[in-house]
Amino acid sequence: MKTLLKNGTVVNVFTDELERADVLLDGGRILGVGTCYKDEDADEVYDASGKFICPGFIDGHIHIESTMMTPAELARLCVENGTTAIMADPHEITNVCGLKGVDYILESSENLPMTVYVMMPSCVPATALDEAGAVLLAEDLEPYYDHPRVLGLAEMMNYPGLLFGDPEVWKKIRSAREKGMVINGHAPLLSGRDLDTYVAAGIGDDHETSSFEEAAERIRKGQRVMIRQGGQARNLEALLPLFEEPWNRRCLLVTDDIHADILMERGHINGIIRQAVKAGKNPVAAIRMATLQAAECFRLQGVGAVAPGYAADIAVLSDLETMTVCDVFKGGKQVVKDGRAEVFEVPAVSAELEETVRNSFHMEPLKKEDFLVPGAGSKSCRVIQLVKHQLLTDVSLEELDLSKGSGIDLDLDILKLAVAERHKNTGHIGLGFLHGFGLKEGALASSVAHDSHNLVILGTNEEDMAVAGNRVREMGGGCVVVKDGKVVEELALPVAGLMSDKTAAEIAEGSAAIQEAAYKLGASKDLDPFMMMAFTALPVIPHVKLTTLGLVDVDTQQLLPLVEEPHQRFCGFS
Amino acid sequence: MKTLLKNGTVVNVFTDELERADVLLDGGRILGVGTCYKDEDADEVYDASGKFICPGFIDGHIHIESTMMTPAELARLCVENGTTAIMADPHEITNVCGLKGVDYILESSENLPMTVYVMMPSCVPATALDEAGAVLLAEDLEPYYDHPRVLGLAEMMNYPGLLFGDPEVWKKIRSAREKGMVINGHAPLLSGRDLDTYVAAGIGDDHETSSFEEAAERIRKGQRVMIRQGGQARNLEALLPLFEEPWNRRCLLVTDDIHADILMERGHINGIIRQAVKAGKNPVAAIRMATLQAAECFRLQGVGAVAPGYAADIAVLSDLETMTVCDVFKGGKQVVKDGRAEVFEVPAVSAELEETVRNSFHMEPLKKEDFLVPGAGSKSCRVIQLVKHQLLTDVSLEELDLSKGSGIDLDLDILKLAVAERHKNTGHIGLGFLHGFGLKEGALASSVAHDSHNLVILGTNEEDMAVAGNRVREMGGGCVVVKDGKVVEELALPVAGLMSDKTAAEIAEGSAAIQEAAYKLGASKDLDPFMMMAFTALPVIPHVKLTTLGLVDVDTQQLLPLVEEPHQRFCGFS
Repeated sequence: MKTLLKNGTVVNVFTDELERADVLLDGGRILGVGTCYKDEDADEVYDASGKFICPGFIDGHIHIESTMMTPAELARLCVENGTTAIMADPHEITNVCGLKGVDYILESSENLPMTVYVMMPSCVPATALDEAGAVLLAEDLEPYYDHPRVLGLAEMMNYPGLLFGDPEVWKKIRSAREKGMVINGHAPLLSGRDLDTYVAAGIGDDHETSSFEEAAERIRKGQRVMIRQGGQARNLEALLPLFEEPWNRRCLLVTDDIHADILMERGHINGIIRQAVKAGKNPVAAIRMATLQAAECFRLQGVGAVAPGYAADIAVLSDLETMTVCDVFKGGKQVVKDGRAEVFEVPAVSAELEETVRNSFHMEPLKKEDFLVPGAGSKSCRVIQLVKHQLLTDVSLEELDLSKGSGIDLDLDILKLAVAERHKNTGHIGLGFLHGFGLKEGALASSVAHDSHNLVILGTNEEDMAVAGNRVREMGGGCVVVKDGKVVEELALPVAGLMSDKTAAEIAEGSAAIQEAAYKLGASKDLDPFMMMAFTALPVIPHVKLTTLGLVDVDTQQLLPLVEEPHQRFCGFS
Repeated sequence: MKTLLKNGTVVNVFTDELERADVLLDGGRILGVGTCYKDEDADEVYDASGKFICPGFIDGHIHIESTMMTPAELARLCVENGTTAIMADPHEITNVCGLKGVDYILESSENLPMTVYVMMPSCVPATALDEAGAVLLAEDLEPYYDHPRVLGLAEMMNYPGLLFGDPEVWKKIRSAREKGMVINGHAPLLSGRDLDTYVAAGIGDDHETSSFEEAAERIRKGQRVMIRQGGQARNLEALLPLFEEPWNRRCLLVTDDIHADILMERGHINGIIRQAVKAGKNPVAAIRMATLQAAECFRLQGVGAVAPGYAADIAVLSDLETMTVCDVFKGGKQVVKDGRAEVFEVPAVSAELEETVRNSFHMEPLKKEDFLVPGAGSKSCRVIQLVKHQLLTDVSLEELDLSKGSGIDLDLDILKLAVAERHKNTGHIGLGFLHGFGLKEGALASSVAHDSHNLVILGTNEEDMAVAGNRVREMGGGCVVVKDGKVVEELALPVAGLMSDKTAAEIAEGSAAIQEAAYKLGASKDLDPFMMMAFTALPVIPHVKLTTLGLVDVDTQQLLPLVEEPHQRFCGFS
């Protein structure tokens, strides 16, 4: 079918011009752009008078799981914001379900009104000091490189491994390169020689860049910088200078981790552009970054421009200040009308895969005794110290009375933290203490706990912790708030314990509700309770975290004892 | 081996900056760029004080055969000018030797100090109204796409075929696209809908662009424009505005057809940049066009920049005005010292291929009778009219006396032109008359006659024509000037009748000598005699040309009779 988009202004990403031109779509491709086309050339005519015809936006790096939405629901929301392609790194679901997680993301995103490209997770598990649901080797990833929507190897977070010559890391890099794949980077603050080595390995981009100086070095060295404006990690303001020439030529826009509420409130890539425009940046250059240059970064041919032969993926905007999306064409078909996504068929996923991702809990029910720290009396215990407004943590040694509440001390704001292995029924439970969270009653539990997504539980008492953990287990995943042995609020995340079946609005509402419930139990308003809890279990952010195996010194990648035994005195020859 | 280029100024094509930085080469790749490297990091230190460290230049479109040099000799000359890669379209040798011509170019360019990438000739033969040495179909080209130095399908000159849906043209395009190949364009003055169709077919660039307006339309539609500054076709001046933003982002620099003398006098890509700089353009942007952007056009990863992981192909320049090349590194090895190429091993070509390309004449000796136009007395004959300073020709009908000199009339400057088939011993000889050339004595013959490269002979008498033609045949190809039955000057081109074994200087000297000899016999100084003769045999440039099959009306692609028989009168019922 041929559609003529008439009387609009084309955003030309090759020349940064706004061009009065009509656009003829033929099936999935753009056939012509100009003023020589007539109504008779098309089966359907679309009136774009007063509107801007823009290439569909591309998000160069996003974790679908972090949105808690299924690919279909995310596509609906994204496409309403003019996004027609995302590069998804299914790192989270793969840590839970292994390659079946990748299969699920691929199957559940087939033929959506937004193309979901997949980058193969490079670091599963993220660390050897945790127990994930799978271990992926280079040879596991390789077959996926032949999939038409798999573009390469996702963020190579293990830059220490790369720099120190870890053979498995290099095997993954070499095999991706041999297959002509793109390799995404993730190496915050890497600089000088180390950055040279990292870039020379073929790591073509980075989304962890947080300052202009850092970006400038990367760009000079040939990397592309993905300007990340996520839900929590927001680098846009610091990186605004990158919207100028020549820097903007080597940048694109990404969200990385973003929640439903922010997507609904701010929009997606169009929202980032709006913020940049508000800060005085040129909207056309910003659109070029978010379209053609994203395609170039991923070596996609014929994507990211309104030009003959290019994919007919088009966002029609009312203006270039608010970046309001009126209508969207994907593969030549109108998929958004007046800002609303047209109904589309949700892709069918094979029964076997549904079975796998919806039964991701492999653990026995928890008992309150599981949370007791062995020992009695006053002991010198390691306590994780939260640092205000940061994901970094410190640690301190505190004298805690293990006989009384197994060490919990609400007066001192010392809570019990537990991470229970949920993938392989090992029964492993890591125990710790946390200071700075503020909870005064009950317990929280969640199956979202980067990157291994074991069951993390935080509580003021062991009974409520067991109730909370068991409720998450029962639901097959989710977030739960318990008080006095009863669930007071919950959000079910039955897909791999990470994603919901619900709509974006319902997820946003559910997330707000559990957060509110946690605040009601005393959680500090300075933090996002469930996110903060999740990150206490991520042993790649300094300095001390908790895994199923116990406390981890992130800087040395060593396990630490929870209870510090007094040093045995050296007794000489006695 | 590691080499440290110290104290130089790096031309950064990602940021257009001139950057004080040292460059560490490790084998064929650049390992690091910065000021953190020390002498101890390298096996060898090169002092680049006061010099500019620039990516090696890339010529995005050149016909090696037009230089008359072998790939090795061309590489020597190019690399001395800082060129480390060319994209060669072996269209000429393939018209003579078929795929063995491609094989020859590939084998004879293996491991040169300049990478010779090959684009598969798309239009062999160029037309059905001539007899070339081969016919190449899509299925003949396909296996070559797996060769590591074959990047795609060369200039798709048959744009009428593409527009009218010629199935073989589309088969070639589709098969190249399916293999992920680049497809180069060649479609002078194509515009509007036709250009849209051509671009939408996947033709990503054009080197025939001759005005800024033409270039602007192409760039808006997503094509890259190759700014051609060849020996004869010189588009630089008209296209100078393309060196400005945003246009320069989608342009690169090419030579297409260029001779040894011009290469020696002007330089190669560095010479084009010098001319642009002289015209006030930014040298760094011009270098970017000729390096990174050429690589991008051909989808080459890790080529065209001085950055970690990139190929260690580097031109060291004394300054950015004269673009004088001091030293060149190719694959990390110094291949030019103080402007002189280091001696390198000339690639061995298999005996069978040498045998084929050096025995490209398959025809019987010529006799003077072969050049006689049948008939007697005064006849109305078609005469090709040269147009001053153009390759275009006109045609006129003249009364010529076939009984006297078989139609030749030196007083009227009407010469005899012949094109003798030399590939398949068909014995076909096309005969014609030519006006405007000026020759007063003797004859010229040449085996360089685009695109079929049959034996073209121009003379003032049939005896000298036979002598000239036979001498070319004897040499296995070349250019010959004959007077009074004797060869007065000759240039041997034994490789496919197109290329010499000699050095650039010898070829330049030989070319000058045959040209001078032709002028001595009366050839007009307004034209390059051998080039003009060659183009009278190219039936794709309007309006009338001569092939082995006779006169061709290029506009209608029909054969024309040489002698116009008087129309038989309509006699009614009598």
